[in-house]
Amino acid sequence: VSRITLLTDFGTRDGYVGAMKGVMSSIFPGVIVDDVSHDVPPGDIRGAALTLSRYWRLYPPGTVHLAVVDPGVGTERAALAAEADRRFFVAPDNGVLSRVHDACPEMRFVRIQNPQFMSAEPSRTFHGRDVFAPVAGHLALGAHHSRHGPGVGGVVRVDEPSAAWAEAALVGEVVSLDRFGNLVTNLPGTSVGGDYEVEIGGKTIPVVGTYGEVPADSVGAVVNSDGRVEVAARERSAADLLSAGVGTRVSLRKTFPS
Amino acid sequence: VSRITLLTDFGTRDGYVGAMKGVMSSIFPGVIVDDVSHDVPPGDIRGAALTLSRYWRLYPPGTVHLAVVDPGVGTERAALAAEADRRFFVAPDNGVLSRVHDACPEMRFVRIQNPQFMSAEPSRTFHGRDVFAPVAGHLALGAHHSRHGPGVGGVVRVDEPSAAWAEAALVGEVVSLDRFGNLVTNLPGTSVGGDYEVEIGGKTIPVVGTYGEVPADSVGAVVNSDGRVEVAARERSAADLLSAGVGTRVSLRKTFPS
Amino acid sequence: VSRITLLTDFGTRDGYVGAMKGVMSSIFPGVIVDDVSHDVPPGDIRGAALTLSRYWRLYPPGTVHLAVVDPGVGTERAALAAEADRRFFVAPDNGVLSRVHDACPEMRFVRIQNPQFMSAEPSRTFHGRDVFAPVAGHLALGAHHSRHGPGVGGVVRVDEPSAAWAEAALVGEVVSLDRFGNLVTNLPGTSVGGDYEVEIGGKTIPVVGTYGEVPADSVGAVVNSDGRVEVAARERSAADLLSAGVGTRVSLRKTFPS
Repeated sequence: VSRITLLTDFGTRDGYVGAMKGVMSSIFPGVIVDDVSHDVPPGDIRGAALTLSRYWRLYPPGTVHLAVVDPGVGTERAALAAEADRRFFVAPDNGVLSRVHDACPEMRFVRIQNPQFMSAEPSRTFHGRDVFAPVAGHLALGAHHSRHGPGVGGVVRVDEPSAAWAEAALVGEVVSLDRFGNLVTNLPGTSVGGDYEVEIGGKTIPVVGTYGEVPADSVGAVVNSDGRVEVAARERSAADLLSAGVGTRVSLRKTFPS
Repeated sequence: VSRITLLTDFGTRDGYVGAMKGVMSSIFPGVIVDDVSHDVPPGDIRGAALTLSRYWRLYPPGTVHLAVVDPGVGTERAALAAEADRRFFVAPDNGVLSRVHDACPEMRFVRIQNPQFMSAEPSRTFHGRDVFAPVAGHLALGAHHSRHGPGVGGVVRVDEPSAAWAEAALVGEVVSLDRFGNLVTNLPGTSVGGDYEVEIGGKTIPVVGTYGEVPADSVGAVVNSDGRVEVAARERSAADLLSAGVGTRVSLRKTFPS
Repeated sequence: VSRITLLTDFGTRDGYVGAMKGVMSSIFPGVIVDDVSHDVPPGDIRGAALTLSRYWRLYPPGTVHLAVVDPGVGTERAALAAEADRRFFVAPDNGVLSRVHDACPEMRFVRIQNPQFMSAEPSRTFHGRDVFAPVAGHLALGAHHSRHGPGVGGVVRVDEPSAAWAEAALVGEVVSLDRFGNLVTNLPGTSVGGDYEVEIGGKTIPVVGTYGEVPADSVGAVVNSDGRVEVAARERSAADLLSAGVGTRVSLRKTFPS
């Protein structure tokens, strides 16, 4: 156990991430900290939950995943330490762990309370430094997660909207935009077998195998690396081309034989 | 001694940070380099000095902190190696170490001159790669900072404006905006005991305990994790909401019993 | 062999870089991954090739340099593992390695084909995670690059435009803008001896020694840390000041004795 990953909405410029890394290095001088991102949009718990879903299980067992997107810092919201499939998690209890929990329903949670593993006088505005980083450092050192506090049953969740059948179409929506302007939907890629087409913003678009097969100056749908239907343009932003964004309705239907 | 932190205004896209990391890895193959930030606004020495103040002492003794915000590269400005409370520093002599020096007046400085610890033919435009990174690598390897050159007494400083009492109010100003649009001031949080209120931009705002207690659609003041008075809005930018920025006047006064 | 550097156009926010790092950590738990940049403009192969040229050789022999700017993912473009001067490379065959190849013509390439070193079922949209990261992890562990597939002779290249003499001037162009708005040209700095001046956008500007010697409110040319002629303004963006960008014509000529 010697690697901690770090996901925040702090940016890097102000030194808050540096403060967290310093705390972890003081507790565990040899620890390796992998930056995942500090560019989560401020307060975007839902986005951070999706981001976390893309990497947590690819890291080896024993890894500590720290996720601090925490608009409720210093209020009554709980702080959590958790374990899922032998990876460890430290995060506020605000739903940021929901996608991990979906993938691993047997996930176990404790409410962080043990003062032994946090700063002597935690501030009310920066639990990243005063609560979460020290707990992550101690988890990486080998302190069992149950030592951080009592187990809790229910945790706060943010749920994704569900796709649903309406007539002959599976109707969902855009749940995320990636850096390229690709539109990630809640339509499962497993629905796409045989001849399907996607409708978005009144446009019917083809399902293709990869980004390079999207017709030039147009858009297409691919099954992305999450196993979801994703709408992409050729070497530009599909979000811009379609004036689409999070919440835009997207549907999937079988093509009619012509 | 095996960890170097890195703070620059280089961005990452151009590969200049990669060049510095490569130099440090060649000198010390097992070194761990922690990125603090490469997003300091170009040439913002004052901002970098504040950022550095937030993490340097949280790292364990022996850490080397490298800070390269260096608009004067290649001119007569000196290059410094320094020691404060058993942490080491490498930086241009332009004030970027001023907040560390404030916190640790017994800090010691040497002027980097020993050609043994720099590139054979340093460029005049990239001392990050040719001077600062090699010195940091050798400090991390264990070369005593005094081996890098002669001690110097005076160094260049950038000072923060001071808050001052005027009538019954402590009057200061905004000294920094963080990523969330929170307005960090030079008013010490220790001034806030009992019933105080803050005035900024003609508005009187309450002092609250944490961000989540700021009234919705409004602004409030908190004592932030630096121990300073900070003005924040609820899940949005106080800077935008108040049209305020660095230099905006902020004052603190006792509330009148009503 | 234990360090991998990472250059992508993925941004960090979506977790794709986290996924790659997770894969590498699972293959080689102690590996150190150095982020070079994830801010390459989407699909900018030429820019990434220049960035890579600035750091690859400064890292020690044995380093694995992973560069994933891959608009052709999932199409017929090959994936490459390569070796140059005892550093290793993993990248799509799209020209991103061209500047390394220029500097080291004896560079050797193999086409990645060995399924033993990639994911069981690679997606068609994210070879960074499913092909490139596993190969990089195994190279760092010590698998010889020739084990990843058959050698290839020709690879795809992106070439820089060449500077050429026209009358008494060496005529080139801007090939890159850096974060500071400095204009990097294809004019070799070795051409600048004695008294030279640079013409750009109808303006004649002096050649100076470093950024701090550029006249205030004006622009000047320096020989930059790549050994190229670069046009810079004093503490602001030369690109903005001159309305210049990639492709802008720049020429160098001897000053006339007056």
